[in-house]
Amino acid sequence: MISEVRQKATLAQNATGLMNKATTEQKNAALNAMADALVANQASIIEANGLDLQRGKEQGTSSSLLDRLALNEQRVAAIADGLREVVELPDPVGELLEQFDRPNGLRVEKKRVPLGVIGMIYEARPNVTVDAVGLCLKTGNTVVLRGGSAALESNREIVKVLREALTNTALPSDAIQLIEDSDRASVNEMLKLNGLLDVVIPRGGASLIRNVVDNATVPVIETGAGICHTYADSSADYEMTANIAFNAKVQRPSVCNSMETLILHEAFAERYLVQLADKFTAAGVELRGDARSLKLLPQAVLATEQDYATEYSDYILNIRIVSNLDEALDHIRKYGTKHSECIVTEDVKNAERFLEEVDAAAVYHNASTRFTDGFEFGFGAEIGISTQKLHARGPMGLPALTSTKYRIYGHGQIRG
Amino acid sequence: MISEVRQKATLAQNATGLMNKATTEQKNAALNAMADALVANQASIIEANGLDLQRGKEQGTSSSLLDRLALNEQRVAAIADGLREVVELPDPVGELLEQFDRPNGLRVEKKRVPLGVIGMIYEARPNVTVDAVGLCLKTGNTVVLRGGSAALESNREIVKVLREALTNTALPSDAIQLIEDSDRASVNEMLKLNGLLDVVIPRGGASLIRNVVDNATVPVIETGAGICHTYADSSADYEMTANIAFNAKVQRPSVCNSMETLILHEAFAERYLVQLADKFTAAGVELRGDARSLKLLPQAVLATEQDYATEYSDYILNIRIVSNLDEALDHIRKYGTKHSECIVTEDVKNAERFLEEVDAAAVYHNASTRFTDGFEFGFGAEIGISTQKLHARGPMGLPALTSTKYRIYGHGQIRG
Repeated sequence: MISEVRQKATLAQNATGLMNKATTEQKNAALNAMADALVANQASIIEANGLDLQRGKEQGTSSSLLDRLALNEQRVAAIADGLREVVELPDPVGELLEQFDRPNGLRVEKKRVPLGVIGMIYEARPNVTVDAVGLCLKTGNTVVLRGGSAALESNREIVKVLREALTNTALPSDAIQLIEDSDRASVNEMLKLNGLLDVVIPRGGASLIRNVVDNATVPVIETGAGICHTYADSSADYEMTANIAFNAKVQRPSVCNSMETLILHEAFAERYLVQLADKFTAAGVELRGDARSLKLLPQAVLATEQDYATEYSDYILNIRIVSNLDEALDHIRKYGTKHSECIVTEDVKNAERFLEEVDAAAVYHNASTRFTDGFEFGFGAEIGISTQKLHARGPMGLPALTSTKYRIYGHGQIRG
Repeated sequence: MISEVRQKATLAQNATGLMNKATTEQKNAALNAMADALVANQASIIEANGLDLQRGKEQGTSSSLLDRLALNEQRVAAIADGLREVVELPDPVGELLEQFDRPNGLRVEKKRVPLGVIGMIYEARPNVTVDAVGLCLKTGNTVVLRGGSAALESNREIVKVLREALTNTALPSDAIQLIEDSDRASVNEMLKLNGLLDVVIPRGGASLIRNVVDNATVPVIETGAGICHTYADSSADYEMTANIAFNAKVQRPSVCNSMETLILHEAFAERYLVQLADKFTAAGVELRGDARSLKLLPQAVLATEQDYATEYSDYILNIRIVSNLDEALDHIRKYGTKHSECIVTEDVKNAERFLEEVDAAAVYHNASTRFTDGFEFGFGAEIGISTQKLHARGPMGLPALTSTKYRIYGHGQIRG
């Protein structure tokens, strides 16, 4: 018997032809129809969400996770508005990226085309379901969704509403597929569906992403893991450093572009570490320092190798004192995940060296790493933040969901 | 004990810092030095190649494979010239791809950077060793080479010469690493070296590529497999069709952009199939036809489902007659590998439909699929032909060996 995963991926693949032909106007009309339908059906969506919340409570899910899962009228409206914002973004499909004529008279065009079928593997938040559908459909792709089982009832109702909304549009309902089998085997089956899925994008915690990277034979866009550093050089301004470092750690510790380790030049540390550390301590941040910093910080415990290699996503901060920029670069090379890295300095030469030599998706001079985000970059959308070097790197907007095709026009040319 | 693969990949990774800093002039000087060294050391290279050829003969290797493996003075000179041609190509590294200012005053730059460490897994031809080194080093990458065991002595000597040549340049010799362990386990170890290798590029036959795609956790650029079709529409000109189809099948059947199946509109077939088929038969091409074509072709045997799904890379051709363009599109959707597809027609509307609807790296109107090639596209180089949709699709020139990095300049901005 054919599995749910293969059956739905096949339906999504079969729907690529119609999606490929859809005009920007048709796609935008469909996104607006889906937004309207979400609001019109908010009662049934919130009811389904209630079942997820109830099961979560019974299973002892933490209140912070339950909060991320919960939907109400305001949240449904915000999710619908998200779709309408995607309508306003330019459609990358069809863009002519290159055009050239060859000496033999061949005309070559390179145009943007949809990727095809995108597999999304993610965790509990039901807003990701709608976000992914909006971005994938706007770019002419079809999507196979595999959300976390904690949000299954919510996702089932949302996808039912979205698919029904498409029946009155030019887009095929089969462009949206939800895998309801909550066994992990269904994820692993998706990862091997070469020929049916064109790409898999994982969004979630480190173990979800690790499983996808380790087991996929379908091409993957790796997202997420961020062990980000802020380095305060000897010439760094104290106020600026304190603002940037505090923002990078405390404003939203749970996200991938937040800071895990603060690296300080010894000259800066001698003068400012105590007052800077007090600021973090007052905000409830637990400090783990290297041997040098411990001499100045009674409140800190010794940081281990494992600490430097951990994405805390929490109110915990490592502090490391270095003798020079090279030691800072070495530390980042050893423990960084090539996500976002910052230098605070008044020395332009050191700033350029840092920006040139640090191998990461986004490197900052005198600004918080928290800006690594599709919205903050002005892309108007974000399907995730790529931490790999192929295809897309850093915040991914709509163009990251496209491929290209060469169209060649001849009049009988053959190769000699 | 640390394995050869991990040890050499680590050396290549450690060399990325120096490669990243190398200027275009330094990289070009190194490529020229390597070209000179190959010519100066042709005697030792040809001698080492002789050992491979002798072992190949003893093991009963086919004469065509031995020919591809063989080096002589002319071939070494041609390989060296290949390096000098790469010198002439523009260096994509450092190119400013995007630049924008955000309302908060952040300045964002998106620049091309090297990928890092590239793993090349390929078969017998020793010229691929030098090609790969030239393209990877020109783009600021380091490379870990794993060639076929049939060329091991040749590759060992070539890499020794290339690494020695680098000692008098600004580039580190460790940018070039050759895996000498000819056990397949060494390939499979490379495929899992996340963190040390940034990408793996397989070049070779279907089984080599399959093994890489199935087992890699490192990102892969899939290359190669081509089941390419030529479709002659009802309005196709006979002479043009015959020229294009003959070129696509016969000029070099062993390559991935050659034709495996000729699809004919019934009106075209009725009028021209017999004379077209005679042309192929006269050239020694074995014909396998569908039931309709067999009625016209006594020399053909019945094509099976398996035949339509096979990349022959040989003097064998499938012939399929269809009633309309839709049937041709269906056939290509079912059996194509999304490599290169051609329509011959005088009907512009049908041509546009074909170019729009066929999902392939390169789609042709009235020209041979044999043109899907980096040199024919004017890229001046080719690291392979990507048949996947991520990162690069179709012939890959130097930019396909680069990634990007966002550089963000601030003056104390934090996220609100």
